[in-house]
Amino acid sequence: MIDCDVHNDWASAQELMPFIDPNFRDYLERGELPGPTGAFPHAHRPWLHPEGFMLTDLTDDGHPGANFEVMREELLDRYNVDYVILTGEEAIEVSTLGNPYFATALASAYNNWMIETWLPKDHRLKGSIIIAPQDPEGAAAEIRRLGDHPDLVQVLMSSGSYRPYGDPQYHPIWEAAAEVGLPIAAHLGGQGGLNYNPIGCGPTTFFWETHALLCETGMAHVASLIAHGVFEKWPTLKFVLIECGVAWLAPILWRLDADYKALRKETPWLKRLPSEYARDHIRLSTQPLEQPKKRDHLWHILEAIDGRHTLLYASDYPHWDFDDPTQIKLPKEWHDDVFDGNARKLYTRLPEKVNGQQKPVNGSPDSSSTA
Amino acid sequence: MIDCDVHNDWASAQELMPFIDPNFRDYLERGELPGPTGAFPHAHRPWLHPEGFMLTDLTDDGHPGANFEVMREELLDRYNVDYVILTGEEAIEVSTLGNPYFATALASAYNNWMIETWLPKDHRLKGSIIIAPQDPEGAAAEIRRLGDHPDLVQVLMSSGSYRPYGDPQYHPIWEAAAEVGLPIAAHLGGQGGLNYNPIGCGPTTFFWETHALLCETGMAHVASLIAHGVFEKWPTLKFVLIECGVAWLAPILWRLDADYKALRKETPWLKRLPSEYARDHIRLSTQPLEQPKKRDHLWHILEAIDGRHTLLYASDYPHWDFDDPTQIKLPKEWHDDVFDGNARKLYTRLPEKVNGQQKPVNGSPDSSSTA
Repeated sequence: MIDCDVHNDWASAQELMPFIDPNFRDYLERGELPGPTGAFPHAHRPWLHPEGFMLTDLTDDGHPGANFEVMREELLDRYNVDYVILTGEEAIEVSTLGNPYFATALASAYNNWMIETWLPKDHRLKGSIIIAPQDPEGAAAEIRRLGDHPDLVQVLMSSGSYRPYGDPQYHPIWEAAAEVGLPIAAHLGGQGGLNYNPIGCGPTTFFWETHALLCETGMAHVASLIAHGVFEKWPTLKFVLIECGVAWLAPILWRLDADYKALRKETPWLKRLPSEYARDHIRLSTQPLEQPKKRDHLWHILEAIDGRHTLLYASDYPHWDFDDPTQIKLPKEWHDDVFDGNARKLYTRLPEKVNGQQKPVNGSPDSSSTA
Repeated sequence: MIDCDVHNDWASAQELMPFIDPNFRDYLERGELPGPTGAFPHAHRPWLHPEGFMLTDLTDDGHPGANFEVMREELLDRYNVDYVILTGEEAIEVSTLGNPYFATALASAYNNWMIETWLPKDHRLKGSIIIAPQDPEGAAAEIRRLGDHPDLVQVLMSSGSYRPYGDPQYHPIWEAAAEVGLPIAAHLGGQGGLNYNPIGCGPTTFFWETHALLCETGMAHVASLIAHGVFEKWPTLKFVLIECGVAWLAPILWRLDADYKALRKETPWLKRLPSEYARDHIRLSTQPLEQPKKRDHLWHILEAIDGRHTLLYASDYPHWDFDDPTQIKLPKEWHDDVFDGNARKLYTRLPEKVNGQQKPVNGSPDSSSTA
């Protein structure tokens, strides 16, 4: 008798360590895996981060975001932060699941867990209602269920998606968000599974190549939300792009304005230029802020989108590409708005500033001189 | 007897005209169709151009590009053009076909037809060798077959693709191009069929929305070619992006440089920053040149990629969004390079300039003053 299919297994994929090309050992040792150490890399997305996503010097267990004491010390107290908007970690990945009911159940579990175990830790913590956009009715119900909680300041999902977010299938979500008066945010992530390849012309190869290009999801959502008239339908709605970069917005809006002018007949419900909708409705978080050789090149392009009033400071704590607020290079006269004022205008549930005064950020921000 | 499937047909989809919502009549009358007038719109790509791609005032038949007399009068003579690089019309769409052998056969047919019926018309016409990138061996053979023709100045394919062009599957093509000494160009197009959705987060809806975002394919090819070390492997190779826009390049390179610095271990074969490879190996055609409200915003961002030496003037004749050379808004001191010098350096088979003099472009280009 010959048995033609018998599975020989390892107890842990770590057993491969002595056998793999040394150049790739780090991928197994510290890199992105679809599970705990010892999991075998399978391409839940085609490209894996070779070093993992976390700042490794904060905690020994590889989960600094799970340790509030460290977060308080290393982020809240160190930089004298008034409020931080919590965005979860893996929870936005619910958008990749084909089963919409399970996806909403997981999002809801995150929201309950965050409300019960995180918000009571510190009055400076504010939460996001995470939703599964592939389940618009379930997402809308979740927004209405939690929408009057005073410490939840936005609705959040991944930038990876099955369709660009202007599509009518998502409108029940925007309707619910407008009803409860919360902004919508899309955070970089949610690639793989149900969602489309996030980059034009197919799967990319390396993490650094891919990470630089993931802003393409942000571009598509901005264009789609504007084109479908979402901001005409819900004039109070704001849309925040988190971790998608900022410098590309002006070039994309120039293209959108030109193409809209030529073919606006396709979208007769629009009354203004795409760039005008963007100015009023789109907000961008700063991390990772682009760092050209000549600072002026960035500042000029940000001036074209009124960056002073559309950018929101974000650190991305505790991720590998964390932006230290004392190192952000933006015009000094923008600091009050970008580090504080713009977020307070957007997240209307945050308390007013006492005396209207901006507290100084700890450290010595001195970023107004040109490089 | 009941027959449950009998097909009732129209002789032409034009019969639907009296029955369709008037807002959409233009889509059927003048818009993009998968065949001649009377074809029924099916989504060979998800979004259809509502007015068609051609300048409609040049000829009555809707095929101005097929009429050389009109091209000579309206383009070559009118603007006093020394040379035009022909890029075909539908031929680059061979990249969308699943059958690689048929795709190469069609590309080859275009090349033979162009050499036999177009190049003899006028010494100012120069050709591109169109290839089917999904058939790398066939493409390489086609490049070697035609590579020594003195009037063929580049290898051309669509920007839409199955994978970003740095992928090893395409390397036989770059090998052949380097061997015959021709630059490679990717022209906007080739969406649908075999190729990936060209825009992050899935199919878009409207043509103007989509057209503005199609630059995402260019971003991915630039990143991929650099990351895979194509320009280390073939140091003489140049890569031209045609009709993908230009202003986005600087922001994308800033992101690529930052991510490469952090994770360059993934690509140990690279010796320089992504932006440095781009400066030496990537060229961009100008059409459609972005038109911000403040011209300075564009000029600054182009300065960041040394636009004076990396941009190539292109009109996109006879397409709907044709750029008139007398209306291009670039710094006056860049004109000699962008309108002439950069193309002669890239397309080395073009004759040297007589007396090294730039002939004036007909019309009155006066674009150096700020808007």
